[in-house]
Amino acid sequence: MDKKGPPTSITLPETIKVFRNLNNAKRFAIDIGGSLTKIAYYSTVSYRRPNYGVDKDSSSPSEDNNYELSETARLHFVKFETKFIEHCLDFVKANLVGTKKSMTGKIIKATGGGAFKYADLIEEKLGLKVEREDEMGCLVKGCNFLLNNISDEAFLFHRHGNPEYEFQNADPNIFPYMLVNIGSGVSILKVTSPESYERVGGTATGGGTFWGLGTLLTRAKGFDELLDLAEVGDHRNTDMLVGDVYGGDYKGHGLESDLLASAFGKVCLSAKKGQAMNFSEADIARSLLFTISNDIGQIASLYAMIHNLKKVYFGGYFLRNHPLSMHTVSFAINYWSKGQVQSLFLRHEGYLGAIGAFLKGTEQDGEEYSWAENYAWSSALEPQPAVWIDNLKGNSTCVSQLELDRDVRRTFCPLLTNPSTYIPDTVDLTTDHEARTYWLKCFEETIDKFVEAAVASQADDETAVDRAAQCKEKFIKRLHHLKNHPFAYGSLTVRGLLETIQHCIKEFDFPDPYIGIKQSENEAALSQLQYRLEYLDSLQPYQQQVELAIGMLAGNMFDWGAKAVIDMMKQEGFGLTEAIRKIPARPWVIDNLDTWIERLEGPAHRQAAIFIDNSGFDAILGMLPFARFLLSRGTKVMVCANSEPALNDVTFVELEVILQQAGVICPKIKKAVDEKRLIPMETAQIGPCLDLSRLDRKLAKRMVDVDLLVIEGMGRAVHTNLNADFTCESLRVAVIKNKWLSQRLGGDMFAAIFKYLPPVLKE
Amino acid sequence: MDKKGPPTSITLPETIKVFRNLNNAKRFAIDIGGSLTKIAYYSTVSYRRPNYGVDKDSSSPSEDNNYELSETARLHFVKFETKFIEHCLDFVKANLVGTKKSMTGKIIKATGGGAFKYADLIEEKLGLKVEREDEMGCLVKGCNFLLNNISDEAFLFHRHGNPEYEFQNADPNIFPYMLVNIGSGVSILKVTSPESYERVGGTATGGGTFWGLGTLLTRAKGFDELLDLAEVGDHRNTDMLVGDVYGGDYKGHGLESDLLASAFGKVCLSAKKGQAMNFSEADIARSLLFTISNDIGQIASLYAMIHNLKKVYFGGYFLRNHPLSMHTVSFAINYWSKGQVQSLFLRHEGYLGAIGAFLKGTEQDGEEYSWAENYAWSSALEPQPAVWIDNLKGNSTCVSQLELDRDVRRTFCPLLTNPSTYIPDTVDLTTDHEARTYWLKCFEETIDKFVEAAVASQADDETAVDRAAQCKEKFIKRLHHLKNHPFAYGSLTVRGLLETIQHCIKEFDFPDPYIGIKQSENEAALSQLQYRLEYLDSLQPYQQQVELAIGMLAGNMFDWGAKAVIDMMKQEGFGLTEAIRKIPARPWVIDNLDTWIERLEGPAHRQAAIFIDNSGFDAILGMLPFARFLLSRGTKVMVCANSEPALNDVTFVELEVILQQAGVICPKIKKAVDEKRLIPMETAQIGPCLDLSRLDRKLAKRMVDVDLLVIEGMGRAVHTNLNADFTCESLRVAVIKNKWLSQRLGGDMFAAIFKYLPPVLKE
Repeated sequence: MDKKGPPTSITLPETIKVFRNLNNAKRFAIDIGGSLTKIAYYSTVSYRRPNYGVDKDSSSPSEDNNYELSETARLHFVKFETKFIEHCLDFVKANLVGTKKSMTGKIIKATGGGAFKYADLIEEKLGLKVEREDEMGCLVKGCNFLLNNISDEAFLFHRHGNPEYEFQNADPNIFPYMLVNIGSGVSILKVTSPESYERVGGTATGGGTFWGLGTLLTRAKGFDELLDLAEVGDHRNTDMLVGDVYGGDYKGHGLESDLLASAFGKVCLSAKKGQAMNFSEADIARSLLFTISNDIGQIASLYAMIHNLKKVYFGGYFLRNHPLSMHTVSFAINYWSKGQVQSLFLRHEGYLGAIGAFLKGTEQDGEEYSWAENYAWSSALEPQPAVWIDNLKGNSTCVSQLELDRDVRRTFCPLLTNPSTYIPDTVDLTTDHEARTYWLKCFEETIDKFVEAAVASQADDETAVDRAAQCKEKFIKRLHHLKNHPFAYGSLTVRGLLETIQHCIKEFDFPDPYIGIKQSENEAALSQLQYRLEYLDSLQPYQQQVELAIGMLAGNMFDWGAKAVIDMMKQEGFGLTEAIRKIPARPWVIDNLDTWIERLEGPAHRQAAIFIDNSGFDAILGMLPFARFLLSRGTKVMVCANSEPALNDVTFVELEVILQQAGVICPKIKKAVDEKRLIPMETAQIGPCLDLSRLDRKLAKRMVDVDLLVIEGMGRAVHTNLNADFTCESLRVAVIKNKWLSQRLGGDMFAAIFKYLPPVLKE
Repeated sequence: MDKKGPPTSITLPETIKVFRNLNNAKRFAIDIGGSLTKIAYYSTVSYRRPNYGVDKDSSSPSEDNNYELSETARLHFVKFETKFIEHCLDFVKANLVGTKKSMTGKIIKATGGGAFKYADLIEEKLGLKVEREDEMGCLVKGCNFLLNNISDEAFLFHRHGNPEYEFQNADPNIFPYMLVNIGSGVSILKVTSPESYERVGGTATGGGTFWGLGTLLTRAKGFDELLDLAEVGDHRNTDMLVGDVYGGDYKGHGLESDLLASAFGKVCLSAKKGQAMNFSEADIARSLLFTISNDIGQIASLYAMIHNLKKVYFGGYFLRNHPLSMHTVSFAINYWSKGQVQSLFLRHEGYLGAIGAFLKGTEQDGEEYSWAENYAWSSALEPQPAVWIDNLKGNSTCVSQLELDRDVRRTFCPLLTNPSTYIPDTVDLTTDHEARTYWLKCFEETIDKFVEAAVASQADDETAVDRAAQCKEKFIKRLHHLKNHPFAYGSLTVRGLLETIQHCIKEFDFPDPYIGIKQSENEAALSQLQYRLEYLDSLQPYQQQVELAIGMLAGNMFDWGAKAVIDMMKQEGFGLTEAIRKIPARPWVIDNLDTWIERLEGPAHRQAAIFIDNSGFDAILGMLPFARFLLSRGTKVMVCANSEPALNDVTFVELEVILQQAGVICPKIKKAVDEKRLIPMETAQIGPCLDLSRLDRKLAKRMVDVDLLVIEGMGRAVHTNLNADFTCESLRVAVIKNKWLSQRLGGDMFAAIFKYLPPVLKE
């Protein structure tokens, strides 16, 4: 956050700022291509986090809502046209000098063709020693990093399809794959493991050829103008199609009439006949783009077939996510491989080299941490160059950036039946137009409630209102952008939108807007815990199970992220009893409660993992009694909570406090905590959802022994994991606090989900 | 032969006439490409052949040297620029009309892209009904036909190598192979048998792309001007090399400094820097040629690897045997396949489609006959367009042609140990510069003797002197052309030069210049036969064998093709005895006589095949006694003679007469002839050499049982088969009547060869 001082970043539209956090920059890398340059730097980011003020030995929560400063790491990647390299280096220098830190003697890793040419300039401007890194090695390292760390990094492109962008889910094993880097020339690499790759082929017909020939043949200035020209051209004026030669399909050989027969084949025909050339520069540009994309696509697919590789990723400056180019390459790959080879594009293909070069200097970070895209500051996928600097010495140029937050090491949940096909989203808003329209509108309406809570959480801070307004503006702009470009940050999902809210709220320095609400609800719930436990204990087994289930459902009503319940919760005296009255009569929309109760006649579970949702009534009166019941059967219970605040979801730190406090009320709970049979765990999730392909590694390790998985709440059990299969028994429990979604699932308002599934084993 | 009447052909330099024999044209086919058109027609050719006047029942040769008319078939292929199609069709029409034959209702097979466009024009001009044939099917059929019929059709190209053109020997099994047809676009075909092929791939980046982009980028008019431009350009001014990017080799990936990194990659560099563009149109043309050839080469090699094909043949108008293009394609194929795939070019690649289309109409001809290139009238391999019409309505254009003579069906001799590596030439004059210089000079000096004989053979014909002069001029021009272009008709060999002489002499209507000489020598030899046989019969076994061998060697002296002996033979009274005196003392240059004599102590041979050489003393006093000796051991003997006259070589028809006449003198010979133990056979050879890959099929069939192969004479045993391996025992007997060659073989004038070899079995 840059709240004061000199301007230390360049502001872009949609309130994205580039070259942020330069004053904390610690390590640099640069990838200088003939067309685009990418600067990478690592910086520390200080942010406030609530000082929960918990003394773990104490059993009472602190009344003090003060903050403490915390520090984390961030990777910044800025991409700009190489012709502005001097301006950009000047900007970096000015802001580094501002920090009065000496960079002299420090190293900048450099890759790309320009690493040779600009080495002196970099050393002169930044005082950094340039250390060159092998270009292809960097590309591969960068690609591995993106595929392993960034959600929805790779996508298939279907022009005019629904979806146009088909993002690929995370895969625990990304190897082997082929990487086709289309820079000025083309390199084709076979990558078989994190450490091994081979340049198996290439062609000199690449981006430089398009640019070079395009420059000779048209008046377009620069690569992007050429692409713009191609976009409006009609290649059928210059290219000879099969139909031009054969008057239709060439049926004997399955060649369709509109297939390209000879690129530029019509040019000499009219030249021969002495006709005026009846084609435009745009036609030429399009034909050129097709010719080169086609060639590369065919060559790539042939290499893929020779090496038996099914996935081909593309990098380099040529494609730059240009729809027409991606379409042609995809078409060629699909056509020539007869559908056997997938052409996959990368949202951040431009950064491969810079990421690789950066990682070369810091080998350890690759293994020790995971990194996640910060949706607040990273640029959207660019189908066209989207973002322009206006204030950079009067020049306007295309700049975009990627920011990655350092995270604990994450990995796949070991209980997923098919990790490689697991998708942590129940509905894909990219393809589901109705759902997209609904949710974008819903989030736009809900953001007011969020910023209200944020301002309320910092009532004493005079900047809060302004920051909240900025935050709201940014988020609403993002929603509007996503309306037209649903693919801008990968598959559009409720999870992604919720994470974006978290990123924005955090970036505008509202570390935990709901901290006050959570604390007061926790207090209220704790005050009713003993009564609730006694009541449950008094019931006959069957009735007890029904009541435990209803308790979980009713607890789950207390969700400050759901607009429909916020006003209800604000009513004086709205507690669990009141919530229970809102739960519909059985059978619920999904109601496997009887199967679950039958199951309980069988042996006790060895170990359960419960992913809890909201603080207060939900965690304390809904989930904790259920955990206590499992403990009573001899089952060991891990209660898993978010690492970071997200709405009023209970966080790990809060959970620890709650368990201590509950232990004071219930000796059984205290005993279980003391004996480590009731264990709080953190999930490494950043939003109110649950992505089981990106689970905290420590937690994932301990989950190997789990034979009962309990997932609670809309975000975790409905938006993300409603249809996931697990190798152990699973319970999914949630109340849908949203009329549209309730109806979609076949119920009415506050539809209840109680889904029990036996283990689903891998086929 | 067109001796009288209106001009019925167009005369080209090197006295090559195109559109010959139109008045006898019977069937037509046409292949109309965007650039070049090829017309094919089948005609009958009447030629005079000696009326040997032999009544087979009579034992005396006729004294009458008159001729009788004989008819054979010829295939004509004429290639010209498509823009002159109307002129050419007019010319064809005029000459067809001259014949007063109606073509109406007859069919012309048509292929190529223009088959659609020009159908009406053809029907209007020629009155022929156009029947379209599948282009690719025609290409494959044409390619199979050329590879099976035409000697030295395919070649590797090594730019600036020795040889530049490495021709491939005939192969009994040409399948499987890949055919890459580079027309306006590129088709890649996998051919697995005469009947089966598949289009496995292709690219639209082909000749049309080179032509089209070249037309847009340079002022060159037409395809050939573009190639000329490319020839003088320097692509390093426009292309980015590996060294331009990395300042040297990119060692980590084995990319050398001078390898292409980005085609046209330097163009935008200078454009970006605002520099003046420092490259020429020629540089652009060369870069374009490289880009497209490289791409095609790489794609072709990848398909070859995928389909495990080792041989890739190229067809289509793009390459047109242009050295730079062939070099680039070869380089790319070799580079990308790591030497695993051979790129092979075809001398007559331009005719593939026309040949195929023609054959589609006459399926039977493909199997029933063999066809051979007529060296007198066919155009040379064109590294550049070579031949221009000047008298075609004032236009000048490039025209070339191929003429094929119909022949009996030929096939490989079944006794060859390795038919697929058999080369019917001992010395390759293409690579052996010294030998080439010697032989070209030798033939230029000898041609006078040949035309003298030709004129003498037609002393009564007043046109003989003129025809002989034309014949000599044509042959000498050919020799001069071959001096600079030794690859013009395949590997330059003594055999090829001798066949060319035969073609020229026959084409200028000298059916058998040595007929008189042969007859008088036969008579002289027959008059001494009884004495010679009695003498041989009187000798002890060892001495007899020595004398038989010496007799064969001495007989072989009587060769009217050898300048060094012609004057000697013209001396009064020069006979076998005199010739024996010229045979050097033993040991001869190659002298396995003792081994042969030892061998004779073993079992008799089952069947012998004797390939005889000259008429007269050679056949009658040298070879016949040897055959008689073999017969006496119980060996069946086939005596194999040329089908057509070649110098004073004995022809099959003459051999039949000789055996009859010898039978009158020797009862043992008569008995063997009557009992079919002594059988005359014809070889289907057209010159004084012996190409065992193109042997008369009937003879080849009978040779399966042969266990002794005897080959006699310089042409058959030295020039062509000195180093061949056979699966049966073999004898090669010859006298070298040529000082240079004698010395080269380590002897002096009249070096004698008596080579005996036991069977060499296939490894």
